[in-house]
Amino acid sequence: MTKARQIKLGAFLMTDGHHIAGWRHPRATANANVRVDHYLRLARLAEAAKLDAIFLSDSLGVRDTNLNSVHRTSRNVGFEPLTLLSALSVVTHHIGLIGTASTSFNEPFHIARKFASLDQLSGGRAGWNLVTSSGEEEARNFNLDEHIPHADRYDRAREFIEVVKGLWNSWEDDAFQRDKVSGTYFNPDKLHVLNHRGKHFKVAGPLNVARSPQGHPVVVQAGASEDGRSLAGESAEAIFCAHRTLAEARAFYADIKTRAANAGRDPDHVKIMPGVFPVIGRTEAEAREKFEELQSLIHPAVGLQLLSVVAGVGDLSGYDLDGPLPDLPETNGPKSRQQLVIDAARRDNLTIRQLYLSIAGARGHWQVVGTAEQIADQLEERFRKEGADGFNIMAPHLPGGLEDFIEQVVPILQERGLFRTEYEGTTLRENLGLPFPTHPAARDERLIAEAAE
Amino acid sequence: MTKARQIKLGAFLMTDGHHIAGWRHPRATANANVRVDHYLRLARLAEAAKLDAIFLSDSLGVRDTNLNSVHRTSRNVGFEPLTLLSALSVVTHHIGLIGTASTSFNEPFHIARKFASLDQLSGGRAGWNLVTSSGEEEARNFNLDEHIPHADRYDRAREFIEVVKGLWNSWEDDAFQRDKVSGTYFNPDKLHVLNHRGKHFKVAGPLNVARSPQGHPVVVQAGASEDGRSLAGESAEAIFCAHRTLAEARAFYADIKTRAANAGRDPDHVKIMPGVFPVIGRTEAEAREKFEELQSLIHPAVGLQLLSVVAGVGDLSGYDLDGPLPDLPETNGPKSRQQLVIDAARRDNLTIRQLYLSIAGARGHWQVVGTAEQIADQLEERFRKEGADGFNIMAPHLPGGLEDFIEQVVPILQERGLFRTEYEGTTLRENLGLPFPTHPAARDERLIAEAAE
Repeated sequence: MTKARQIKLGAFLMTDGHHIAGWRHPRATANANVRVDHYLRLARLAEAAKLDAIFLSDSLGVRDTNLNSVHRTSRNVGFEPLTLLSALSVVTHHIGLIGTASTSFNEPFHIARKFASLDQLSGGRAGWNLVTSSGEEEARNFNLDEHIPHADRYDRAREFIEVVKGLWNSWEDDAFQRDKVSGTYFNPDKLHVLNHRGKHFKVAGPLNVARSPQGHPVVVQAGASEDGRSLAGESAEAIFCAHRTLAEARAFYADIKTRAANAGRDPDHVKIMPGVFPVIGRTEAEAREKFEELQSLIHPAVGLQLLSVVAGVGDLSGYDLDGPLPDLPETNGPKSRQQLVIDAARRDNLTIRQLYLSIAGARGHWQVVGTAEQIADQLEERFRKEGADGFNIMAPHLPGGLEDFIEQVVPILQERGLFRTEYEGTTLRENLGLPFPTHPAARDERLIAEAAE
Repeated sequence: MTKARQIKLGAFLMTDGHHIAGWRHPRATANANVRVDHYLRLARLAEAAKLDAIFLSDSLGVRDTNLNSVHRTSRNVGFEPLTLLSALSVVTHHIGLIGTASTSFNEPFHIARKFASLDQLSGGRAGWNLVTSSGEEEARNFNLDEHIPHADRYDRAREFIEVVKGLWNSWEDDAFQRDKVSGTYFNPDKLHVLNHRGKHFKVAGPLNVARSPQGHPVVVQAGASEDGRSLAGESAEAIFCAHRTLAEARAFYADIKTRAANAGRDPDHVKIMPGVFPVIGRTEAEAREKFEELQSLIHPAVGLQLLSVVAGVGDLSGYDLDGPLPDLPETNGPKSRQQLVIDAARRDNLTIRQLYLSIAGARGHWQVVGTAEQIADQLEERFRKEGADGFNIMAPHLPGGLEDFIEQVVPILQERGLFRTEYEGTTLRENLGLPFPTHPAARDERLIAEAAE
């Protein structure tokens, strides 16, 4: 009997919370951006609840350049993910450690090495969330005046991951004998030098880190564009994505699984984990109240900046916040998104304040507001109807929001048999149900042996 | 009364030891290159003894390409320093964490950020050992076919450190108010955007890490060339160097202190810490025996490779190891060094084996073989005669060699009042006796206030 399919759960840790005003909540750690003990507490909490992983996003710079709004938000300054995850690796024992790193402003040797090192430090619990960088503010920290075009970014990303995976196979699993008596430290036949020469990179190798207990770090991706999906179908082992409705989630799920199958992979070996932003109350009304409390903490300058950046609506700072949306000039930005927001405002007679509140909160992710039971129901539905293999939990404020989810929702999922009560293995790969990546040379040897039988 | 000058001590941790055959010693951790607990034990040992810092070198690749020798050595494959130090940061509380990172194949934004993050994780205990990369094997992992010329490397290094220090000053110490009530997270007047545009780098900033309790990480350097010394005099706060004789050490010490003074700095604010390779016995004879035991573990292939790489002598693998050095053809390599080794061999009638043994061991560093008392005497002499402000301890094998030094030599230095018995402060900077780097804007404000009085 095969074990019933279960939900995978990640805790997406963003400083003091995912709600843009979450840092102002009484239960949020105010100075989370310089407190490693804040993260340590969250990682231990997630591990005690048997979550699969903690997940960190990344930005190679301060993205928001509007000082008037940015100085009222907390998420631009904090720890660098790889150093933070390394710190957490030695004070946790089971939980996966997934960090984001961009292929746009990094070198594959550094990335292969740092994640391999994290994988060793943690005994096989590392994951690399591969992203391409889209921000011009990031480009300007790396000798560029403007950003590289989208297609070029993905072309580079595709070669980048090929190089990283090649470097991760520099050493076979049993390459290191370390025989003090004979003086042989490693078996030279088990060393494989990459000698990559491609369009974007020339990387000789070998990598100077040994293969880890999970072979190599789990490869996670987040792109939703055509290029992103295509790359994910080929090489992602887990996908972090954003879908508000069940229909969207199901369509994306089916698309990725098909792409994986078309690439000759087992579709079950790519785990689809959309983000979910939960607000939990003892009653539905209490949950709504809690959400409104968070919304009321959004400073108008922050709200207007959200409208400007997320929705592409121009500067509205001269208008009455509680008045209607004025007539807007045409912009050069993405029109369809702007029009969508404007149409919604007109249709529902929204004031400017109501409009920015409507797009604040979960940043495009799925928002569930209700009792623990209601939230568990919704997760179960999306999971059973093949909209997700698991979820990346985006608590509105931290640590409180994650505590609530873990204390109230996780036990319900466990009671329903939808979530583990003990870790399946010792590596992230084992817990996610992903196969061990056999080293190509070992695979070849096995094939030769089989053929000879 | 000012406190008497005391010796600073670092523990230079190299996998399983600094002797090239140290890994074969019975007391060496055989699988140190994948065991974080090995490093954890060493860091805790050093901290219990009140050492200033642990120190990690780095190589951006496997440098030795001679498979016949490299597979008999242990030091080419292991943890990446920044991830390893980050892991150690949360399980130690006082000891400094100095890691090496090259300016040749990195971007200043990444380096500024990672070390700033380590500084936050550790509560102000990070140090960056700035090096330029000289190996062609490293260049080949970063899209280059051959290495950048020496002068260009230092030109880049000088601008690199300027950018890194600029990024470290992105935020004033009290920039973050995090006032939940008013909704002000930081004071925009205390944010400083770098906007660097130079010959090698264009970096906008700001850095997305806050200033740490020690202002910024301690800047360590290691270059001994004219370019290296010049840069160190301008900007190093500690120097790791290699000098065998007291005379060499004194000359280097005086030179650097003069350069610092000429650059307008307090010469006491650059700490000179040469490496020392100690072999400790209960008697001098026992110490010599211990050293010979290590020497006997050097495989001839490793010894011949040392001759070839370190001394620039060609391939001698066809000759009798216990016979004399043959006549050698002229090489294109650095002649003076080769000639020095050849002259020594002829003068002392050394066999090939004796010759390679003579250059093995401390890799050009100062080697002290004797009783704990004798070693303490030698350290004291070099310290008192202004050949050093402290030492970077390079144990022949690990953990045993560091245990010996800490159990036997450190107490003698403490009895003599030459080494602390309690940490002076909580940051690396405080323990090394280095000044807090006041933020330029705070310094300007103070000057204006003083002028107005």
